[in-house]
Amino acid sequence: MKVKVVANILEANDRLAAENQKIFDELGVFVINLMSGPGAGKTSVLESTIKEVNGKIKIGVIEGDIAGDDDARRIEILNTPVVQINTGGACHLDANMIRVVMDDLPLKDIDLLFIENVGNLVCPAEFNVGEDIKVMLLSIAEGHDKPLKYPLMFQTSSALILNKIDLLPYTNADINKIKKDALSLNPKLKIFEVSCKTGEGISEWVNWLYSMVNNKP
Amino acid sequence: MKVKVVANILEANDRLAAENQKIFDELGVFVINLMSGPGAGKTSVLESTIKEVNGKIKIGVIEGDIAGDDDARRIEILNTPVVQINTGGACHLDANMIRVVMDDLPLKDIDLLFIENVGNLVCPAEFNVGEDIKVMLLSIAEGHDKPLKYPLMFQTSSALILNKIDLLPYTNADINKIKKDALSLNPKLKIFEVSCKTGEGISEWVNWLYSMVNNKP
Repeated sequence: MKVKVVANILEANDRLAAENQKIFDELGVFVINLMSGPGAGKTSVLESTIKEVNGKIKIGVIEGDIAGDDDARRIEILNTPVVQINTGGACHLDANMIRVVMDDLPLKDIDLLFIENVGNLVCPAEFNVGEDIKVMLLSIAEGHDKPLKYPLMFQTSSALILNKIDLLPYTNADINKIKKDALSLNPKLKIFEVSCKTGEGISEWVNWLYSMVNNKP
Repeated sequence: MKVKVVANILEANDRLAAENQKIFDELGVFVINLMSGPGAGKTSVLESTIKEVNGKIKIGVIEGDIAGDDDARRIEILNTPVVQINTGGACHLDANMIRVVMDDLPLKDIDLLFIENVGNLVCPAEFNVGEDIKVMLLSIAEGHDKPLKYPLMFQTSSALILNKIDLLPYTNADINKIKKDALSLNPKLKIFEVSCKTGEGISEWVNWLYSMVNNKP
């Protein structure tokens, strides 16, 4: 019974997600669903990305949080169009939430839309929101056992940003194990090693973004 | 409609949780539902706790993960009774999962049962599993904005373990803001600053555990 309910919710969500994607496609907006556990640094990576891109392509952001608008305010001061979704208690964004707020962004002027999901390494991976690709972050401080414990997010993402790489000397995390296990789950996964603190890896990540946006069909 | 379904699931879960709690009470087992985001160090804190307690009270563990049994194996080599739940895809433990595995533990010989939930700062806070209290961890590397973004878990927990305190010099995290915001959400919250790497704070935490176990009605 319970499984059936969940399946219906996912199906209904997929239908709405396809409608969102059609709207984004018609307007030529490349959409990334950005996911991670809490505190892996999604908003910091967005800040570094916006600064590095420096207007070369036009970025917009939808911020998803259970409560609060801290993240939207961090994006807004970078002169980047942003809307904040508060899910109330829900642990992930769904397609309908995106549908409700998308008209609040100047989509015609946006090349690349980031949808920053609720910090959660589990549920967001199950709910499409109309994105072209999913990208996930993992903080080095979260340890090297995460790929095998949270396989779905690694399997559904096109890229993995290993963030806070500057903390590597101060942790026991085995970065090679993270990469090996992540690639065993998803051999096509593109992996970036990034530090928003030192700037390491940001330009490689941004160059890859350019190629993705320019190759949008 | 969707909200109604969720309410029914929560209600049915609460009923089962109350049954679990009755069983634990009759056997004199103090039960802690241990929650955090991914990689905050729940299993490391359990390892440090078991070593510090060193048999003075008898500990048992139920490990919850979406996949894998790494955590259970880490507990098992410490000669501590443990069972592993794999949720398949579910992002939290529920009371029925605990009901199914509890008979696999020697509950009559256990004073303190830790139920290590799936790494998720959101959903586990909504599902009682039959525990006496909830305890949450936050890793310093997750940043200082977490209490206001994930309020429910801070509100429902009796204690907060601020873990990986050794990383504080290498991050921008403002520990006073974490404590202030957490206490504003939950003035009774007991806060421990802990490092499993240096051992800092473990004895304070364990002394508090003794007082909780000894005061179980």
